[in-house]
Amino acid sequence: MAVMVGRADGAPHFALRQFAVEPGGHTPRHQHDYEHEVFVVSGEGTVFLGGRENPIRGGDVIYVPANEEHQFRSKQDQPGPLRFLCMVPIEQNCGGPVPGS
Amino acid sequence: MAVMVGRADGAPHFALRQFAVEPGGHTPRHQHDYEHEVFVVSGEGTVFLGGRENPIRGGDVIYVPANEEHQFRSKQDQPGPLRFLCMVPIEQNCGGPVPGS
Repeated sequence: MAVMVGRADGAPHFALRQFAVEPGGHTPRHQHDYEHEVFVVSGEGTVFLGGRENPIRGGDVIYVPANEEHQFRSKQDQPGPLRFLCMVPIEQNCGGPVPGS
Repeated sequence: MAVMVGRADGAPHFALRQFAVEPGGHTPRHQHDYEHEVFVVSGEGTVFLGGRENPIRGGDVIYVPANEEHQFRSKQDQPGPLRFLCMVPIEQNCGGPVPGS
């Protein structure tokens, strides 16, 4: 994960992070007190959201509301990683910094 | 301009919009009381920022701080538009909704 724009740049409201998940890999399945806005840059995979796996690919946009369980999976057989942008607010709704912002 | 995630979706902090600027075209040169975080999806062009034109292309990230004059230009000779994501906060720093959020 790379923070492209965030707290360290003086961004006052939200942070732009880029993820690359290698083929067959996945992010943790978790939930938290802040939303994600996601843009898939390239590759294919699935996102667990709304209680099921949903296919995703380059160009897709995903909104993950606060407190929704979610997980991103990169398809096994593909030439490169699943790359996506994941934007988060700088502050958690309950106060304090969002991790990775 | 298309709002991919915004106020109408219940997004509490920031909006994700997508722009396509045809070859030779440009956005208004302006400034406002909120920041932009920009990801160039595809194409080439320039961004006027910091008092000069800066080249941009697919994969680039640009942070436009609040109150900085800026403008995006799409290169004349290219096969498709300059496509970019432009994220904005939902609320202006001075209060009230951000246009297009």
